[in-house]
Amino acid sequence: WKGAPLFADNDAGFTFKVRGRFMMDTSYMSTPDFQNPRDYGFNTRVRRIRLGVEGTLPGEFGYKAEVDFANSAVGFGDVVMSWNPKKGPLTLTLGNQESLDGMEQITSSRWSSFIERAQINDAFGNTRRLGLVVGYKSKDNLFRLDGGLFAAHSIDASLDNKGWIGAARATYTPYVGPGFVHIGLNWQHREFQENNGSTALTAGAGSPSTGQLVQYRARPFLQTTGQRFADTTSFAAKGDDIFGVELYGVFNSLHVGGEAQLVKVRSYSAGDRLVSRDQFTTNTQLVASGNPTFWGGHFEVGYFLTGETRGYKNGTWDRTKVLNPVDKGGMGAFQILGRVDYLDLNSDKLQIGFSNNFTTGVATASNSLARGGTQTGYLAGLTWIPNDYVRFLLNYIHTEVEGGPKAASVKPTSTKTVDKRSYSSDAIALRAQFDF
Amino acid sequence: WKGAPLFADNDAGFTFKVRGRFMMDTSYMSTPDFQNPRDYGFNTRVRRIRLGVEGTLPGEFGYKAEVDFANSAVGFGDVVMSWNPKKGPLTLTLGNQESLDGMEQITSSRWSSFIERAQINDAFGNTRRLGLVVGYKSKDNLFRLDGGLFAAHSIDASLDNKGWIGAARATYTPYVGPGFVHIGLNWQHREFQENNGSTALTAGAGSPSTGQLVQYRARPFLQTTGQRFADTTSFAAKGDDIFGVELYGVFNSLHVGGEAQLVKVRSYSAGDRLVSRDQFTTNTQLVASGNPTFWGGHFEVGYFLTGETRGYKNGTWDRTKVLNPVDKGGMGAFQILGRVDYLDLNSDKLQIGFSNNFTTGVATASNSLARGGTQTGYLAGLTWIPNDYVRFLLNYIHTEVEGGPKAASVKPTSTKTVDKRSYSSDAIALRAQFDF
Amino acid sequence: WKGAPLFADNDAGFTFKVRGRFMMDTSYMSTPDFQNPRDYGFNTRVRRIRLGVEGTLPGEFGYKAEVDFANSAVGFGDVVMSWNPKKGPLTLTLGNQESLDGMEQITSSRWSSFIERAQINDAFGNTRRLGLVVGYKSKDNLFRLDGGLFAAHSIDASLDNKGWIGAARATYTPYVGPGFVHIGLNWQHREFQENNGSTALTAGAGSPSTGQLVQYRARPFLQTTGQRFADTTSFAAKGDDIFGVELYGVFNSLHVGGEAQLVKVRSYSAGDRLVSRDQFTTNTQLVASGNPTFWGGHFEVGYFLTGETRGYKNGTWDRTKVLNPVDKGGMGAFQILGRVDYLDLNSDKLQIGFSNNFTTGVATASNSLARGGTQTGYLAGLTWIPNDYVRFLLNYIHTEVEGGPKAASVKPTSTKTVDKRSYSSDAIALRAQFDF
Repeated sequence: WKGAPLFADNDAGFTFKVRGRFMMDTSYMSTPDFQNPRDYGFNTRVRRIRLGVEGTLPGEFGYKAEVDFANSAVGFGDVVMSWNPKKGPLTLTLGNQESLDGMEQITSSRWSSFIERAQINDAFGNTRRLGLVVGYKSKDNLFRLDGGLFAAHSIDASLDNKGWIGAARATYTPYVGPGFVHIGLNWQHREFQENNGSTALTAGAGSPSTGQLVQYRARPFLQTTGQRFADTTSFAAKGDDIFGVELYGVFNSLHVGGEAQLVKVRSYSAGDRLVSRDQFTTNTQLVASGNPTFWGGHFEVGYFLTGETRGYKNGTWDRTKVLNPVDKGGMGAFQILGRVDYLDLNSDKLQIGFSNNFTTGVATASNSLARGGTQTGYLAGLTWIPNDYVRFLLNYIHTEVEGGPKAASVKPTSTKTVDKRSYSSDAIALRAQFDF
Repeated sequence: WKGAPLFADNDAGFTFKVRGRFMMDTSYMSTPDFQNPRDYGFNTRVRRIRLGVEGTLPGEFGYKAEVDFANSAVGFGDVVMSWNPKKGPLTLTLGNQESLDGMEQITSSRWSSFIERAQINDAFGNTRRLGLVVGYKSKDNLFRLDGGLFAAHSIDASLDNKGWIGAARATYTPYVGPGFVHIGLNWQHREFQENNGSTALTAGAGSPSTGQLVQYRARPFLQTTGQRFADTTSFAAKGDDIFGVELYGVFNSLHVGGEAQLVKVRSYSAGDRLVSRDQFTTNTQLVASGNPTFWGGHFEVGYFLTGETRGYKNGTWDRTKVLNPVDKGGMGAFQILGRVDYLDLNSDKLQIGFSNNFTTGVATASNSLARGGTQTGYLAGLTWIPNDYVRFLLNYIHTEVEGGPKAASVKPTSTKTVDKRSYSSDAIALRAQFDF
Repeated sequence: WKGAPLFADNDAGFTFKVRGRFMMDTSYMSTPDFQNPRDYGFNTRVRRIRLGVEGTLPGEFGYKAEVDFANSAVGFGDVVMSWNPKKGPLTLTLGNQESLDGMEQITSSRWSSFIERAQINDAFGNTRRLGLVVGYKSKDNLFRLDGGLFAAHSIDASLDNKGWIGAARATYTPYVGPGFVHIGLNWQHREFQENNGSTALTAGAGSPSTGQLVQYRARPFLQTTGQRFADTTSFAAKGDDIFGVELYGVFNSLHVGGEAQLVKVRSYSAGDRLVSRDQFTTNTQLVASGNPTFWGGHFEVGYFLTGETRGYKNGTWDRTKVLNPVDKGGMGAFQILGRVDYLDLNSDKLQIGFSNNFTTGVATASNSLARGGTQTGYLAGLTWIPNDYVRFLLNYIHTEVEGGPKAASVKPTSTKTVDKRSYSSDAIALRAQFDF
């Protein structure tokens, strides 16, 4: 049993288990001045409802497949087949999987510190894509190196999506004092989808861009609103590179650490012309005055009041084993958490841009200080884990925003320039979750 | 085994079972005069195809999740997690579940007397929503009381749905003579979704209204046609209350009884203005001249020719155990059923209405006797249950309609007023079903 | 175990198994001259991701249900319940199933010779529909006869789809020399959906036509492009009949054979009028000058280098048992394959047609040699089967096209008539697959 029965015919090499998870969120978020109250206030949503399977087949083949129905539509978790020849150090993994995009993103949503992951993952489009990953692990599993090649989309109906992503991630987990330290580096080289055709291009599921138009933006630490305060707006670019660092330490009931990512965009330039290809649905698009750079990062501390140690395995967080679950007469595990999460989407090169006609090459100045903005979240969390398979998360979130597309309407009378106007919002959110 | 294997680790508190159901309907329905024949005649549909899981986790936690694919889209059955602390009288159930909306609606579709449920459930929007239910049951499980608070939508992608429902249901099942009687009361207080915003509002899945526009209507006892004969058309309202009674008796192979519900609408009035909120996509909407009331109810008799007793459990119908299933050389169970089902959607207060401009408060008379109508169904059923998990239902349905939006076109030469013109339709339908 | 655990309570007559399959394709296809390169070149897609169940219930009832999520939407494999009274020669199968449309089409996609099935199946709309099949098999299971009646759609939300299909298939499998021969005949009589109404008709999933407009066309042996080189374009017809022959031989590691189908269309004629029914969304439609006939067929050879015999069961291909799987220290099975696949969508009767006004009956000549075209595929395949549940398919495809809608733009300077201009494309494709 691992929540659900795990069937095994170890001699033949078969195993099989049904997988599932359910997360339901209820939240209240205060409405910034002069904003449409409809998208704020109370909301209730099923965030994830997944059913799937995992197993092994003879010859060290493995598989995992999860379908997500949370939006009353079809989405996916990992959908992969893997091969670990002779149980050696190398594993090949093919299918729909995270593009090696950072520890918290690769960690299952079941083990996140807070209800939502850090905002770099939302802002920079870290998600699953179709690809092949070659993974190496040292004999003691303390050092791991993964390299992957991905199509720039997930499982979808797109027939014309030719963007791609090359990615790599290395992690090292030395024992330090009473615990261990996790050190990780990750890198994604992303080539956006060219639009060599006359008709509008559909952005495939999980695509980091819409054709060669890219937009970086993040929701305020909740998925129960559709609003984004920090938002570059859409501009023309060929691709980007994302560089990330991960540093965490786990010492008994305490864990501490964080991650950061920097994205360097390869923008189109004023004067660029597309002679034989009509790359955009309309020929005139915003371009930056150079290659913009954006970044974000978070730092967090968590502590189990009830003595547990946070689960960790294979370079990501894992299930935490509850010491005194409610079925044994205990009260389960209680964890308190704090996090600061910062995102900087400001760039002079984008705020000073051009409206470029890709047919004629004629560019006119297009400047706006409302592009981008910074968003800082101060999060406090209390997590109750009555048994290994059930969780309740309570989060308080204070969001500080400076600049961005909404600053002008929230602070209409401010005498500051738009990029210096700041406002805030407070939210409280509750998640109920089980998995098997 | 309960159709499919039920796995249990009783010491640890784990159980797990895969669930599924399949219902395929074929029907023929006669076409009322002058109506478009396309929506009548023969039709074949898969009504439900569901896959899911159920189980328990240590500490008296339970879960159930069913996804429905019948429209080649994603729908849901119950998707809930529950907690029954110390196996006591109280159970908390969180997730996508019926809003305590009446015995036949809460009963699984697998155990319905007829192919479709009574028309009050269709007309008044009884369905599943996201909510939390606190349930109490007496030690002998003869008395049950449930109270719940629900969002006015189901699992969907809506981010702005702020309607809510408070609901309660009480049932009592005393032993009477050779069987028992089921007495139930149910109540739903529904607040429709305000539309505090400038853009059109999407009605979430399972929402009882579209924003603050509500429409009560019912199909003619089949889901193989898209037509509704009785239909209030859409009008502006803030919410409604639904009051229901349930009364059934089961005596050996006989069961008899029925349910009724009355809905009292809180309508907007002529002259109402919405000063700071634009509540409707167009400012001028139909309002009633008072708070309309609608109601419906059914009465049914069923009898097992082969000696079975209709299954009943926890305040709803349940699986009937076949005495002589075909695999034991028997002929299975045969049940004959009859039902009269009446729905009254007429209301003077709606037929005499106003077209109200919510910006100016100027209202002009808008009267129509074609709003609403009554629909009466006379249903006869024969159900064959070859074993506990397979069913075939044959229904004959005679539908009588008086008034409603189609009466004028079906009876164009009648000298009666539109609300007094009556017509009928006959249908025969066959369902094949299995579940596990 | 059959990939996943097979649970059985043989005394009671219960069995249960979870089913699944995953197929991921990567391909490169060369772009014909002057064509939009977006739909060619590299592409990566998940072709099928299915989860489902199968089992038996007491009394010789059986079921199978598979949901497909490959387009990030809901599709279906077989969704059926069956009854085999007293394990006799007759079996009734009800639900979503192939309309007895040819051996390769009825064969599971897991056992196809090449990545995609022969183009007759794509061109003539062979797929699953809702229906009832009565099947007879001889005691030695060498002779099988199936007859079925189907609605002309699959599991979907359509409420007005009244087309239907009658179909029959007979197969005989005598032992011949060191192996056996499969001889099959199949026939489908298809009546297209009448559109007796004023609003546009949605084509149900799996419908062979859109209302009474039909279009025969085929992709170039891959589903990683949306292009079709051979295409009749859409014309008005009442229905069609499809006649098919199947002939294969299996002798030790060799298999050889093929299939062909001929479709005879019942076209509308110039001068036809629709007095009381508005059958088309626009009244003027293309009609042929007679009843067109189209046909296609393929011939293939396959050989296992590693000694296996291709799996065959119940009149279709089945799972091949690997002699030396990788988990036993072997190298798995290797099969080489070759196929020629021809499709002829040319018809004088369609190329010489009329634009017919169905209101007035006035027809004007509408001739085009670009309607239809022929497409010939030369395919070479290498299949590696490391164990019974995992497969890798490598296909090389050379496509020759003559005529059709794209010939004029690919060969703009040719002096030949459009129907004689020919061009080609080359493709290489790789599939990774597992199932359980």
